[in-house]
Amino acid sequence: MPANNPKPQPTQSELKTAKGTRDWVGRDLLLRDRISQTITNVFKRHGGIPLDTPVFELREVLAGKYGEDAKLIYNVEDQGGELLSLRYDLTVPFARWLAMHSNVKQIKRYQIAKVYRRDQPAISRGRLREFYQCDFDIAGVYDAMIPDAEILRIIVEVFRTLKLGIVIKLNHRCILDGLFTVAGVPGNKIRSISSAVDKLDKAPWDEVKKEMVGEKGLAEEVADKIGEYVRRSGGLREMIDTLREDQELSANEQVQSGLADMDLLARYLTAMDAIESVSFDLSLARGLDYYTGLIYEVITTTSGRSNQVGSVAAGGHYDNLVGRYGKQAIPCVGLSFGVDRIFTILDAQQKKNTSDLKSEADVYVMAAGGKGFDGLLAERMEVASQLWDAGIRAEFTAKVKPKMLQQFNAAKEVPVAVILGQEEMEAGQVRLKDARAGNGDKIEKDRGRLVSRENLVEEVTSLLSKIALEERQD
Amino acid sequence: MPANNPKPQPTQSELKTAKGTRDWVGRDLLLRDRISQTITNVFKRHGGIPLDTPVFELREVLAGKYGEDAKLIYNVEDQGGELLSLRYDLTVPFARWLAMHSNVKQIKRYQIAKVYRRDQPAISRGRLREFYQCDFDIAGVYDAMIPDAEILRIIVEVFRTLKLGIVIKLNHRCILDGLFTVAGVPGNKIRSISSAVDKLDKAPWDEVKKEMVGEKGLAEEVADKIGEYVRRSGGLREMIDTLREDQELSANEQVQSGLADMDLLARYLTAMDAIESVSFDLSLARGLDYYTGLIYEVITTTSGRSNQVGSVAAGGHYDNLVGRYGKQAIPCVGLSFGVDRIFTILDAQQKKNTSDLKSEADVYVMAAGGKGFDGLLAERMEVASQLWDAGIRAEFTAKVKPKMLQQFNAAKEVPVAVILGQEEMEAGQVRLKDARAGNGDKIEKDRGRLVSRENLVEEVTSLLSKIALEERQD
Repeated sequence: MPANNPKPQPTQSELKTAKGTRDWVGRDLLLRDRISQTITNVFKRHGGIPLDTPVFELREVLAGKYGEDAKLIYNVEDQGGELLSLRYDLTVPFARWLAMHSNVKQIKRYQIAKVYRRDQPAISRGRLREFYQCDFDIAGVYDAMIPDAEILRIIVEVFRTLKLGIVIKLNHRCILDGLFTVAGVPGNKIRSISSAVDKLDKAPWDEVKKEMVGEKGLAEEVADKIGEYVRRSGGLREMIDTLREDQELSANEQVQSGLADMDLLARYLTAMDAIESVSFDLSLARGLDYYTGLIYEVITTTSGRSNQVGSVAAGGHYDNLVGRYGKQAIPCVGLSFGVDRIFTILDAQQKKNTSDLKSEADVYVMAAGGKGFDGLLAERMEVASQLWDAGIRAEFTAKVKPKMLQQFNAAKEVPVAVILGQEEMEAGQVRLKDARAGNGDKIEKDRGRLVSRENLVEEVTSLLSKIALEERQD
Repeated sequence: MPANNPKPQPTQSELKTAKGTRDWVGRDLLLRDRISQTITNVFKRHGGIPLDTPVFELREVLAGKYGEDAKLIYNVEDQGGELLSLRYDLTVPFARWLAMHSNVKQIKRYQIAKVYRRDQPAISRGRLREFYQCDFDIAGVYDAMIPDAEILRIIVEVFRTLKLGIVIKLNHRCILDGLFTVAGVPGNKIRSISSAVDKLDKAPWDEVKKEMVGEKGLAEEVADKIGEYVRRSGGLREMIDTLREDQELSANEQVQSGLADMDLLARYLTAMDAIESVSFDLSLARGLDYYTGLIYEVITTTSGRSNQVGSVAAGGHYDNLVGRYGKQAIPCVGLSFGVDRIFTILDAQQKKNTSDLKSEADVYVMAAGGKGFDGLLAERMEVASQLWDAGIRAEFTAKVKPKMLQQFNAAKEVPVAVILGQEEMEAGQVRLKDARAGNGDKIEKDRGRLVSRENLVEEVTSLLSKIALEERQD
């Protein structure tokens, strides 16, 4: 939204969340949490250590890290104190943390948190201004490409678990920079030409060429030469061979060094059973300034919304970011999952046959009685407390004298009903039944079997296990 | 920090997090997550539905909700678009959500998220500018005080699970307002006198009286009369009886209505086995504007840092907040746990005998060999992948030819070592051993027992269960 055309402040009738943000509730949120949990489990499986950083950083920590995208950073108002900005990603806060902890020479850290970008939102495609990232980074000096290969293996594991088909598009900043040099791009234009190339997944070559020649002042024949290279992609092993056969390219030292990395990577991915998921794509450039080696983006091959959401994970190798905080340089390779985009794909696959706001309670505690029935509220509270003490999820109607039908309808939403009656309570007993069977009428007639209060927890637990087993078998 | 004395921007040597914020990493973060998980489990046990709202709200959503504390709100810079502020609590975003969803008449919702306050921080006491809240609110029309009682029961359950002794200090806004009226406080000064009374847990009566008379212009005899009342506290049942005996007080309609609520509450807390944890404290006022009924704060009785951290949970009943967004009014009662403060107490109780950054891996995959040994990197990758495929947490040294001692030392941090040798691998076998036994030398001599690659997952799983069982018995 342009600054010279500020939107009027909303009146009460326009109550809403801030532009590009949304609330998450109930079923949606449980699915999003399930995705994060799946990813976290894989991170822990690879020895990851959790990190959580503040939502804002000192503004100068973010300065000069994001190239052209820096204009998308949210600043916090200067209210007399430090100048702060909301985090734009989780990589820069991690690099800041590493620079502050010089005793940490090697670490695999993961972080799951929201990041903020004043981008043009498209909520239905999972593109938001506030969105979740799940990051895993391996920092430290190791033998070449071993951490890079493990990062790609993590991606493969996560999407296998989520049952989503993917392709990991790979490239290498050294190969890309060498290729630009061979094509004749002046050194000071390499990063900006790289940004233009990165748009090739969304725009046709003609448009990208126009940007290079028109906006960025590249000679037309240089652009054409770039075009010959960057439209190539294929299997990792096959592409390495093709590029090595290109004598002009393979004479360049940067290209040689990048190809040596890619060669190691191909070997390691074979050993880790992940080679089938990757493709070498010379048009992949990635916008961020700080990458120095392997770069990659993950797209899903599962049909449906996949093509609309863009990449579902991305990352790369960055050697100098930590060193830019004036401390020792620590090479890192990182990975970031776009949880909201993965959510958009999985959500579209699910059948929405339950209410968004269904409670997860297991037991409904209700009371029944004839004339003069006083509602047995204290008794319902006591029985619910007995179940809560045992860790069982239980609810009851928050009325002194609840209507029978209201209770029966609420009970149908949960697996088990515990029914209290005045006489049974006096005898230390309650009725227990599978609450989902039949409609309200039928439940009302079948009032369940009598169990003693002393055995209630045991009986409920056993009935819940039986129901869970039957549901798994369905 | 005053606006007229801005702090110089930090140089690179002063790399740090923003004032009043901290990073969380490793063991600390796992403990904090365990606390959140304990609380979430109790919320789910009571039928709670999760909600997640954006970190910022339209500025006018927060306006007029926090009384004198509004000055602590963080604003987002106006970058041409909407005016935004960071959330100050989770209650107002919930009320905004409810007002936007007029179809939701009743809900138990929970939210676990960070909130932001430009307060004076005291990190060692768990008082931060960015801190976690875990909120549970029951919204909707129910019979009086049943939801309020369930909220207090939830508090008791959480702290029983965390094994922390607590007292829940209760008061009622109607009783407090009635008491101020009886004492002679003018109607337009009630909220500001209430704020002054709320300081009685930190300041002596003389100081609070001085604020009332000096700053807030109350007549001295009115202040004295307030002083007589608000220094009373005791058991819930006993205090209700005492106040009813006070003829001047009990003639006031607001006091009568508040006492009727407290009487119901005492009955319900008895039925829910939570009455022993509460105390009725007339000095409790709570700063926030929106409470209209029951208010409470929870303090721990466990020794150690408890007295320094202040309240570990708090909340109350608010009838009109949702209605202030121009929609129907929905009565609510809410609860907020201060996770960082609970962390501070539990953390001080723990022995810190492990490294903060210990990996949670279960298996270390290593290679051994004599002269001409090539490091078996591809083989280590294959075996690690076999374990990852089975969901087992495994690591290996990211070196082509790792040193033996380096591997053995890394292996000592995890329960199980899998050792590869050239000959064994060719025969489809590896060595498996309990990696924690003895020092590096001893491990090196005892090279474990041979198992076949085919049975590796089974053998590792079984050894891990055996070790876990032994550790539980220790």
